[in-house]
Amino acid sequence: MASASKPIVLYGWPTPNARKVTTFLEELKVAYGLDYDIEGIDIGKNVQKQPAFLKINPNGRVPAIVDRARNNFNVFESAAILLYLQQHYDKENKFGFDPKADPDEYSILLQWIFFVHGGLGPIQGQANHFNKYAPEKIPYAINRYIEETKRVYSVLDTRLTERDWLAGPGRGIFTIADANAIPWVRGHAFAGIETLDEWPNVKAWVARAEARPAFKAGLDVAYSK
Amino acid sequence: MASASKPIVLYGWPTPNARKVTTFLEELKVAYGLDYDIEGIDIGKNVQKQPAFLKINPNGRVPAIVDRARNNFNVFESAAILLYLQQHYDKENKFGFDPKADPDEYSILLQWIFFVHGGLGPIQGQANHFNKYAPEKIPYAINRYIEETKRVYSVLDTRLTERDWLAGPGRGIFTIADANAIPWVRGHAFAGIETLDEWPNVKAWVARAEARPAFKAGLDVAYSK
Repeated sequence: MASASKPIVLYGWPTPNARKVTTFLEELKVAYGLDYDIEGIDIGKNVQKQPAFLKINPNGRVPAIVDRARNNFNVFESAAILLYLQQHYDKENKFGFDPKADPDEYSILLQWIFFVHGGLGPIQGQANHFNKYAPEKIPYAINRYIEETKRVYSVLDTRLTERDWLAGPGRGIFTIADANAIPWVRGHAFAGIETLDEWPNVKAWVARAEARPAFKAGLDVAYSK
Repeated sequence: MASASKPIVLYGWPTPNARKVTTFLEELKVAYGLDYDIEGIDIGKNVQKQPAFLKINPNGRVPAIVDRARNNFNVFESAAILLYLQQHYDKENKFGFDPKADPDEYSILLQWIFFVHGGLGPIQGQANHFNKYAPEKIPYAINRYIEETKRVYSVLDTRLTERDWLAGPGRGIFTIADANAIPWVRGHAFAGIETLDEWPNVKAWVARAEARPAFKAGLDVAYSK
């Protein structure tokens, strides 16, 4: 039940893009005690296209957030939400980097976030569509998007050679770049890629994230109807 | 010809994503005198997949930059390049916002950048593919991507109601959010969308950008072979 005392309201549904945000919100809850309300936006009923929601996200997609603690500022686009929450609620930069104090690490973080936001989500989403939803089976399209998703996994696998996480010095630290990517990679089977065995570093990375209790809790949050 | 005295090296080719960067580099040249070298990466010959280039961009795509003035720091992903250049070379924040001093405007800028990076580029790119390159004509796929590209144009058109530019207070200011989007929108015909007449605000916005001499110069830069 909504409580005005909780700073963040997340509008979402159990999708990879919303899970990017719930995993990070649960991490912030454990690290800083940040609390949030969650409002289900039933995309099966097209609630995301209703005028009330379009005021929060003009693109009519989940997720979006409203920050009650900052004049009801609203943010859409999953990756922009992660960066917003990191800037305002991760004051110790446990999950990201200060753009001024640490500009190179900040840029590297952004590079991997954009790579996933433009190259993984949209493409794996097309693989999902042609694999599960399209009214006709179109082998050319199914193959195109599965192959491109696999190529993206290979780029991630190379990045994760001798690294635990996408960004950060040394073997890296768990950051919003990981939260931005892993909910998509976990959904590989739905897209038509049965296992992650071809990409052992990616497979280990997903397992590493799932072993974090907060991250795991964020994957499994329940939405009201 | 390369000159070590120019801080930035852009690796690119005449594509919408590289034009995001050349338009902004030309704006920075006019505003601050920033100079850059340009190196052609012939994607027709798959130069972007060669090991030397993969060291600069592990994703094997144009554009990418190297910053000689900052220890040869390299940046890939067009939107990450725009944010990097804005942070380091637009010291007066003429084309963007300081994340600390102006966090809300910075977030709004990021939201529109991510919307385009995830929602316009990849989707219009698929429309290009099925319209021009796919070996078979697949009406379902052609229609899917043209319709989704049109939907994205409609979201932009609504945003540009009573605004000149995507981000910034009032009617907005020309920022990297515009440089990030317009090179894609200009390519509508290639994707199978003959005119922008359905989206008058978008059409006026593109014309407004093209009327900027620096932006126009950036659209037309020549690449060595």
